[in-house]
Amino acid sequence: MEVVCLDLEGVLVPEIWIAFAERTGIQELRLTTREVPDYDVLMRSRIRILREHGLKLRDIQDVISTIRPLDGAKDFLDELRSLTQVIILSDTFREFASPLMRQLGWPTIFCNSLVVDGEGTITGFTLRQNDGKRKAIEHLRGMGFRTFAAGDSYNDLTMIACADSGCLFRAPENILLEHPQLHLSTTYDDFMKTIRRFVDG
Amino acid sequence: MEVVCLDLEGVLVPEIWIAFAERTGIQELRLTTREVPDYDVLMRSRIRILREHGLKLRDIQDVISTIRPLDGAKDFLDELRSLTQVIILSDTFREFASPLMRQLGWPTIFCNSLVVDGEGTITGFTLRQNDGKRKAIEHLRGMGFRTFAAGDSYNDLTMIACADSGCLFRAPENILLEHPQLHLSTTYDDFMKTIRRFVDG
Repeated sequence: MEVVCLDLEGVLVPEIWIAFAERTGIQELRLTTREVPDYDVLMRSRIRILREHGLKLRDIQDVISTIRPLDGAKDFLDELRSLTQVIILSDTFREFASPLMRQLGWPTIFCNSLVVDGEGTITGFTLRQNDGKRKAIEHLRGMGFRTFAAGDSYNDLTMIACADSGCLFRAPENILLEHPQLHLSTTYDDFMKTIRRFVDG
Repeated sequence: MEVVCLDLEGVLVPEIWIAFAERTGIQELRLTTREVPDYDVLMRSRIRILREHGLKLRDIQDVISTIRPLDGAKDFLDELRSLTQVIILSDTFREFASPLMRQLGWPTIFCNSLVVDGEGTITGFTLRQNDGKRKAIEHLRGMGFRTFAAGDSYNDLTMIACADSGCLFRAPENILLEHPQLHLSTTYDDFMKTIRRFVDG
Protein backbone atom coordinates (compact mmCIF):
# COMPACT_ATOMS: atom_id res chain seq x y z
CA MET A 1 0.00 0.00 0.00
CA GLU A 2 1.26 3.44 -0.85
CA VAL A 3 0.18 7.04 -0.42
CA VAL A 4 1.13 10.05 -2.53
CA CYS A 5 1.46 13.41 -0.75
CA LEU A 6 1.28 16.56 -2.83
CA ASP A 7 1.84 20.20 -2.06
CA LEU A 8 -1.14 22.36 -3.08
CA GLU A 9 -0.09 25.83 -4.27
CA GLY A 10 2.10 25.77 -7.36
CA VAL A 11 1.33 22.08 -7.87
CA LEU A 12 -2.48 21.93 -8.22
CA VAL A 13 -3.62 25.55 -7.83
CA PRO A 14 -1.90 28.93 -8.30
CA GLU A 15 -0.12 30.59 -5.39
CA ILE A 16 -2.93 32.19 -3.37
CA TRP A 17 -0.82 35.03 -1.98
CA ILE A 18 0.52 35.96 -5.42
CA ALA A 19 -3.03 36.13 -6.75
CA PHE A 20 -3.97 38.30 -3.79
CA ALA A 21 -0.88 40.53 -4.28
CA GLU A 22 -1.83 41.06 -7.92
CA ARG A 23 -5.43 41.87 -7.07
CA THR A 24 -4.50 44.36 -4.35
CA GLY A 25 -1.36 45.70 -6.00
CA ILE A 26 0.63 45.11 -2.78
CA GLN A 27 3.97 43.87 -4.12
CA GLU A 28 5.28 42.77 -0.69
CA LEU A 29 2.61 40.05 -0.58
CA ARG A 30 4.12 38.30 -3.61
CA LEU A 31 6.74 36.51 -1.50
CA THR A 32 5.98 32.81 -0.88
CA THR A 33 7.67 29.72 0.54
CA ARG A 34 9.39 29.47 -2.84
CA GLU A 35 11.58 32.42 -1.81
CA VAL A 36 11.37 32.55 2.00
CA PRO A 37 12.54 29.40 3.79
CA ASP A 38 11.17 30.42 7.23
CA TYR A 39 7.38 30.00 7.18
CA ASP A 40 6.88 31.74 10.51
CA VAL A 41 8.75 34.84 9.34
CA LEU A 42 6.77 34.81 6.09
CA MET A 43 3.36 34.54 7.78
CA ARG A 44 4.07 37.18 10.42
CA SER A 45 5.10 39.54 7.66
CA ARG A 46 1.91 38.80 5.70
CA ILE A 47 -0.31 39.40 8.72
CA ARG A 48 1.46 42.72 9.46
CA ILE A 49 1.00 43.88 5.85
CA LEU A 50 -2.69 42.92 5.84
CA ARG A 51 -3.26 44.87 9.05
CA GLU A 52 -1.40 47.94 7.70
CA HIS A 53 -3.74 47.92 4.68
CA GLY A 54 -6.88 47.18 6.71
CA LEU A 55 -7.44 43.97 4.76
CA LYS A 56 -9.51 41.17 6.32
CA LEU A 57 -10.04 37.44 5.84
CA ARG A 58 -13.10 38.20 3.70
CA ASP A 59 -10.95 40.18 1.22
CA ILE A 60 -8.64 37.20 0.72
CA GLN A 61 -11.54 34.78 0.46
CA ASP A 62 -13.11 37.00 -2.22
CA VAL A 63 -9.95 36.63 -4.30
CA ILE A 64 -9.71 32.90 -3.65
CA SER A 65 -13.27 32.46 -4.91
CA THR A 66 -11.99 33.59 -8.34
CA ILE A 67 -8.98 31.23 -8.43
CA ARG A 68 -9.23 28.11 -10.60
CA PRO A 69 -7.01 25.01 -10.40
CA LEU A 70 -3.99 25.02 -12.74
CA ASP A 71 -4.68 23.81 -16.29
CA GLY A 72 -4.79 20.01 -16.23
CA ALA A 73 -4.60 19.75 -12.43
CA LYS A 74 -8.10 18.34 -11.93
CA ASP A 75 -7.65 15.63 -14.60
CA PHE A 76 -4.23 14.75 -13.18
CA LEU A 77 -5.61 14.48 -9.65
CA ASP A 78 -8.67 12.48 -10.75
CA GLU A 79 -6.45 9.93 -12.49
CA LEU A 80 -4.07 9.77 -9.54
CA ARG A 81 -6.92 9.20 -7.07
CA SER A 82 -8.15 6.27 -9.17
CA LEU A 83 -4.67 4.69 -8.93
CA THR A 84 -3.65 5.22 -5.33
CA GLN A 85 -4.34 7.17 -2.15
CA VAL A 86 -3.58 10.89 -2.26
CA ILE A 87 -3.25 13.39 0.58
CA ILE A 88 -2.53 17.07 0.01
CA LEU A 89 -0.02 18.33 2.56
CA SER A 90 -0.16 22.11 2.56
CA ASP A 91 0.88 25.03 4.72
CA THR A 92 -2.22 26.93 3.63
CA PHE A 93 -5.20 27.43 5.95
CA ARG A 94 -8.55 25.69 6.10
CA GLU A 95 -10.17 29.13 5.75
CA PHE A 96 -8.52 29.46 2.32
CA ALA A 97 -8.60 25.87 1.10
CA SER A 98 -12.29 25.03 0.99
CA PRO A 99 -13.35 26.65 -2.33
CA LEU A 100 -10.28 25.16 -4.00
CA MET A 101 -10.93 21.69 -2.60
CA ARG A 102 -14.51 21.87 -3.89
CA GLN A 103 -13.21 22.52 -7.41
CA LEU A 104 -10.77 19.61 -7.08
CA GLY A 105 -13.50 17.16 -5.94
CA TRP A 106 -12.77 17.27 -2.19
CA PRO A 107 -9.41 15.52 -1.98
CA THR A 108 -8.13 15.03 1.58
CA ILE A 109 -5.98 17.94 2.74
CA PHE A 110 -3.91 18.32 5.89
CA CYS A 111 -3.22 22.02 6.51
CA ASN A 112 -3.25 24.79 9.17
CA SER A 113 -5.80 27.25 10.50
CA LEU A 114 -6.02 31.02 11.02
CA VAL A 115 -6.80 33.01 14.13
CA VAL A 116 -9.36 35.66 13.23
CA ASP A 117 -10.81 38.31 15.56
CA GLY A 118 -14.45 39.44 15.85
CA GLU A 119 -13.96 42.02 13.08
CA GLY A 120 -12.61 39.42 10.64
CA THR A 121 -9.00 40.61 10.93
CA ILE A 122 -6.39 37.86 10.76
CA THR A 123 -4.44 38.15 14.00
CA GLY A 124 -2.42 34.94 13.89
CA PHE A 125 -2.30 31.36 12.75
CA THR A 126 -2.21 27.90 14.29
CA LEU A 127 0.04 25.27 12.78
CA ARG A 128 -1.34 21.75 13.01
CA GLN A 129 2.16 21.01 14.25
CA ASN A 130 5.69 22.28 13.59
CA ASP A 131 7.29 20.80 10.47
CA GLY A 132 3.88 19.27 9.77
CA LYS A 133 4.59 18.05 6.24
CA ARG A 134 7.61 16.00 7.28
CA LYS A 135 5.85 14.64 10.38
CA ALA A 136 2.82 13.63 8.30
CA ILE A 137 5.11 11.54 6.09
CA GLU A 138 6.72 9.97 9.15
CA HIS A 139 3.33 9.05 10.61
CA LEU A 140 2.08 7.69 7.27
CA ARG A 141 5.19 5.49 7.13
CA GLY A 142 4.39 4.46 10.69
CA MET A 143 0.96 3.32 9.39
CA GLY A 144 2.70 0.89 7.01
CA PHE A 145 2.53 3.01 3.86
CA ARG A 146 5.17 3.45 1.19
CA THR A 147 5.22 7.22 0.65
CA PHE A 148 5.82 9.52 -2.30
CA ALA A 149 6.01 13.29 -1.80
CA ALA A 150 6.16 16.15 -4.28
CA GLY A 151 6.14 19.93 -4.15
CA ASP A 152 7.82 23.07 -5.44
CA SER A 153 8.94 24.99 -2.36
CA TYR A 154 11.36 25.16 0.53
CA ASN A 155 8.69 23.87 2.89
CA ASP A 156 8.37 20.70 0.79
CA LEU A 157 12.01 19.65 0.98
CA THR A 158 11.91 17.88 4.34
CA MET A 159 8.83 15.85 3.39
CA ILE A 160 10.45 14.85 0.10
CA ALA A 161 13.63 13.84 1.91
CA CYS A 162 11.65 11.85 4.49
CA ALA A 163 9.45 9.99 1.96
CA ASP A 164 10.38 6.69 0.31
CA SER A 165 10.42 8.53 -3.01
CA GLY A 166 9.54 11.94 -4.36
CA CYS A 167 10.21 14.71 -6.84
CA LEU A 168 9.92 18.43 -7.45
CA PHE A 169 7.14 19.85 -9.62
CA ARG A 170 7.76 23.18 -11.41
CA ALA A 171 10.16 24.32 -8.69
CA PRO A 172 11.92 27.68 -9.10
CA GLU A 173 15.56 28.03 -10.15
CA ASN A 174 16.94 28.61 -6.64
CA ILE A 175 15.57 25.30 -5.34
CA LEU A 176 16.71 23.39 -8.46
CA LEU A 177 20.24 24.75 -8.05
CA GLU A 178 20.34 23.78 -4.38
CA HIS A 179 18.85 20.29 -4.93
CA PRO A 180 20.13 18.96 -8.28
CA GLN A 181 19.71 15.38 -7.03
CA LEU A 182 15.87 15.64 -7.04
CA HIS A 183 13.90 14.68 -10.14
CA LEU A 184 11.99 17.63 -11.58
CA SER A 185 8.67 17.26 -13.40
CA THR A 186 7.33 20.26 -15.28
CA THR A 187 4.29 18.65 -16.95
CA TYR A 188 1.45 16.60 -15.45
CA ASP A 189 2.24 13.84 -17.98
CA ASP A 190 5.78 13.41 -16.70
CA PHE A 191 4.58 13.86 -13.11
CA MET A 192 2.07 11.01 -13.57
CA LYS A 193 4.71 8.76 -15.16
CA THR A 194 7.08 9.42 -12.27
CA ILE A 195 4.43 8.58 -9.69
CA ARG A 196 3.26 5.50 -11.64
CA ARG A 197 6.81 4.11 -11.56
CA PHE A 198 6.70 4.44 -7.77
CA VAL A 199 3.21 2.92 -7.43
CA ASP A 200 4.06 -0.01 -9.72
CA GLY A 201 7.46 -0.54 -8.10
CA MET B 1 -7.95 20.72 12.97
CA GLU B 2 -9.87 17.48 13.09
CA VAL B 3 -10.24 14.34 11.01
CA VAL B 4 -13.21 11.95 10.90
CA CYS B 5 -12.45 8.25 10.34
CA LEU B 6 -15.25 6.03 9.08
CA ASP B 7 -15.57 2.32 8.60
CA LEU B 8 -16.69 1.44 5.05
CA GLU B 9 -18.91 -1.66 4.95
CA GLY B 10 -22.16 -1.27 6.86
CA VAL B 11 -21.53 2.47 7.20
CA LEU B 12 -21.29 3.73 3.60
CA VAL B 13 -21.72 0.60 1.46
CA PRO B 14 -23.33 -2.82 2.06
CA GLU B 15 -21.24 -5.69 3.42
CA ILE B 16 -19.34 -6.98 0.38
CA TRP B 17 -19.09 -10.58 1.63
CA ILE B 18 -22.80 -10.77 2.43
CA ALA B 19 -23.61 -9.57 -1.09
CA PHE B 20 -21.23 -12.20 -2.46
CA ALA B 21 -22.74 -14.92 -0.24
CA GLU B 22 -26.19 -14.05 -1.50
CA ARG B 23 -25.11 -14.10 -5.12
CA THR B 24 -23.29 -17.42 -4.83
CA GLY B 25 -25.66 -19.02 -2.32
CA ILE B 26 -22.73 -19.96 -0.05
CA GLN B 27 -24.14 -19.35 3.42
CA GLU B 28 -20.77 -19.69 5.20
CA LEU B 29 -19.57 -16.52 3.47
CA ARG B 30 -22.21 -14.44 5.26
CA LEU B 31 -20.08 -14.12 8.40
CA THR B 32 -18.41 -10.70 8.82
CA THR B 33 -16.47 -8.74 11.43
CA ARG B 34 -19.86 -7.97 12.95
CA GLU B 35 -19.97 -11.57 14.22
CA VAL B 36 -16.36 -12.76 14.21
CA PRO B 37 -13.97 -10.72 16.37
CA ASP B 38 -10.78 -12.30 14.96
CA TYR B 39 -10.19 -10.90 11.47
CA ASP B 40 -7.39 -13.34 10.67
CA VAL B 41 -9.60 -16.35 11.46
CA LEU B 42 -12.41 -14.83 9.39
CA MET B 43 -10.25 -14.16 6.32
CA ARG B 44 -8.53 -17.55 6.37
CA SER B 45 -11.94 -19.19 6.46
CA ARG B 46 -13.16 -17.05 3.54
CA ILE B 47 -10.11 -17.89 1.42
CA ARG B 48 -10.55 -21.63 2.15
CA ILE B 49 -14.23 -21.51 1.15
CA LEU B 50 -13.45 -19.61 -2.07
CA ARG B 51 -10.84 -22.21 -3.00
CA GLU B 52 -13.20 -25.11 -2.26
CA HIS B 53 -15.75 -23.59 -4.64
CA GLY B 54 -13.19 -22.66 -7.31
CA LEU B 55 -14.10 -18.98 -6.97
CA LYS B 56 -11.59 -16.33 -8.02
CA LEU B 57 -10.96 -12.64 -7.42
CA ARG B 58 -12.76 -11.85 -10.70
CA ASP B 59 -15.96 -13.52 -9.39
CA ILE B 60 -15.97 -11.26 -6.32
CA GLN B 61 -15.16 -8.18 -8.38
CA ASP B 62 -18.08 -8.99 -10.69
CA VAL B 63 -20.43 -8.89 -7.69
CA ILE B 64 -18.84 -5.73 -6.30
CA SER B 65 -19.42 -3.99 -9.64
CA THR B 66 -23.17 -4.36 -8.96
CA ILE B 67 -23.06 -2.98 -5.39
CA ARG B 68 -24.25 0.59 -4.81
CA PRO B 69 -23.55 2.79 -1.76
CA LEU B 70 -26.20 2.66 0.98
CA ASP B 71 -29.17 5.00 0.45
CA GLY B 72 -28.09 8.49 1.49
CA ALA B 73 -24.42 7.56 1.99
CA LYS B 74 -23.07 9.63 -0.90
CA ASP B 75 -24.94 12.78 0.17
CA PHE B 76 -23.85 12.26 3.78
CA LEU B 77 -20.22 11.82 2.75
CA ASP B 78 -20.29 14.81 0.37
CA GLU B 79 -21.59 17.06 3.14
CA LEU B 80 -19.06 15.70 5.63
CA ARG B 81 -16.15 16.24 3.23
CA SER B 82 -17.21 19.88 2.81
CA LEU B 83 -17.05 20.32 6.61
CA THR B 84 -13.92 18.49 7.63
CA GLN B 85 -11.30 15.96 6.57
CA VAL B 86 -12.52 12.37 6.19
CA ILE B 87 -10.52 9.14 5.92
CA ILE B 88 -12.15 5.74 5.48
CA LEU B 89 -10.41 3.15 7.66
CA SER B 90 -11.40 -0.27 6.39
CA ASP B 91 -10.27 -3.88 6.63
CA THR B 92 -11.37 -4.45 3.06
CA PHE B 93 -8.86 -4.79 0.20
CA ARG B 94 -7.79 -2.32 -2.46
CA GLU B 95 -8.82 -4.95 -5.06
CA PHE B 96 -12.41 -4.68 -3.78
CA ALA B 97 -12.60 -1.00 -2.85
CA SER B 98 -11.95 0.79 -6.13
CA PRO B 99 -15.41 0.56 -7.82
CA LEU B 100 -17.05 1.61 -4.54
CA MET B 101 -14.67 4.55 -4.04
CA ARG B 102 -15.44 5.72 -7.58
CA GLN B 103 -19.15 5.82 -6.75
CA LEU B 104 -18.41 7.75 -3.54
CA GLY B 105 -16.28 10.38 -5.34
CA TRP B 106 -12.85 8.95 -4.44
CA PRO B 107 -12.66 9.61 -0.71
CA THR B 108 -9.32 8.66 0.85
CA ILE B 109 -9.30 5.06 2.10
CA PHE B 110 -6.68 3.22 4.14
CA CYS B 111 -7.18 -0.55 3.74
CA ASN B 112 -5.39 -3.85 3.05
CA SER B 113 -4.40 -5.82 -0.04
CA LEU B 114 -4.89 -9.37 -1.36
CA VAL B 115 -2.33 -11.90 -2.51
CA VAL B 116 -3.53 -13.37 -5.83
CA ASP B 117 -1.79 -16.09 -7.86
CA GLY B 118 -1.31 -16.22 -11.64
CA GLU B 119 -4.71 -17.91 -12.12
CA GLY B 120 -6.54 -15.17 -10.20
CA THR B 121 -7.10 -17.32 -7.09
CA ILE B 122 -6.91 -15.44 -3.79
CA THR B 123 -4.16 -17.19 -1.82
CA GLY B 124 -3.71 -14.78 1.06
CA PHE B 125 -3.87 -11.19 2.18
CA THR B 126 -1.48 -8.51 3.39
CA LEU B 127 -2.54 -6.25 6.24
CA ARG B 128 -1.16 -2.73 5.97
CA GLN B 129 -0.28 -3.36 9.63
CA ASN B 130 -1.77 -5.26 12.55
CA ASP B 131 -4.57 -3.41 14.34
CA GLY B 132 -4.34 -0.89 11.50
CA LYS B 133 -7.48 1.09 12.34
CA ARG B 134 -6.35 1.85 15.89
CA LYS B 135 -2.81 2.64 14.80
CA ALA B 136 -4.09 4.99 12.08
CA ILE B 137 -5.96 6.95 14.76
CA GLU B 138 -2.85 7.06 16.95
CA HIS B 139 -0.74 8.37 14.08
CA LEU B 140 -3.36 10.94 13.09
CA ARG B 141 -3.35 12.16 16.69
CA GLY B 142 0.43 12.27 16.44
CA MET B 143 -0.02 14.61 13.46
CA GLY B 144 -1.89 17.06 15.68
CA PHE B 145 -5.44 16.13 14.70
CA ARG B 146 -8.47 15.83 16.94
CA THR B 147 -9.99 12.51 15.84
CA PHE B 148 -13.52 11.12 15.54
CA ALA B 149 -14.06 7.45 14.64
CA ALA B 150 -17.23 5.53 13.78
CA GLY B 151 -18.11 2.03 12.64
CA ASP B 152 -20.41 -0.91 13.22
CA SER B 153 -18.15 -3.89 13.92
CA TYR B 154 -15.76 -5.55 16.34
CA ASN B 155 -12.79 -4.36 14.31
CA ASP B 156 -13.93 -0.74 14.83
CA LEU B 157 -13.98 -0.81 18.62
CA THR B 158 -10.28 -0.17 19.24
CA MET B 159 -10.21 2.80 16.87
CA ILE B 160 -13.32 4.27 18.51
CA ALA B 161 -11.77 3.80 21.96
CA CYS B 162 -8.49 5.40 20.81
CA ALA B 163 -10.09 8.43 19.13
CA ASP B 164 -10.92 11.71 20.91
CA SER B 165 -14.58 10.99 20.19
CA GLY B 166 -16.65 8.49 18.27
CA CYS B 167 -19.85 6.53 17.92
CA LEU B 168 -21.37 3.37 16.50
CA PHE B 169 -23.44 3.44 13.31
CA ARG B 170 -26.10 0.77 12.77
CA ALA B 171 -24.18 -1.73 14.90
CA PRO B 172 -25.71 -5.16 15.55
CA GLU B 173 -27.31 -6.15 18.86
CA ASN B 174 -24.31 -8.09 20.21
CA ILE B 175 -22.01 -5.07 19.96
CA LEU B 176 -24.63 -2.72 21.42
CA LEU B 177 -25.10 -5.02 24.42
CA GLU B 178 -21.36 -5.25 25.02
CA HIS B 179 -20.75 -1.49 24.60
CA PRO B 180 -23.75 0.38 26.01
CA GLN B 181 -21.55 3.41 26.75
CA LEU B 182 -21.08 4.21 23.04
CA HIS B 183 -23.52 6.53 21.27
CA LEU B 184 -25.40 4.77 18.48
CA SER B 185 -26.57 6.55 15.32
CA THR B 186 -28.96 4.72 13.03
CA THR B 187 -29.69 7.51 10.52
CA TYR B 188 -27.32 9.70 8.51
CA ASP B 189 -29.09 12.77 9.94
CA ASP B 190 -28.26 11.83 13.52
CA PHE B 191 -24.79 10.69 12.44
CA MET B 192 -24.12 14.11 10.88
CA LYS B 193 -25.41 15.93 13.98
CA THR B 194 -23.16 13.82 16.20
CA ILE B 195 -20.10 14.54 14.07
CA ARG B 196 -20.99 18.26 13.76
CA ARG B 197 -21.01 18.54 17.55
CA PHE B 198 -17.49 17.15 17.57
CA VAL B 199 -16.28 19.39 14.72
CA ASP B 200 -17.81 22.53 16.27
CA GLY B 201 -16.59 21.62 19.75
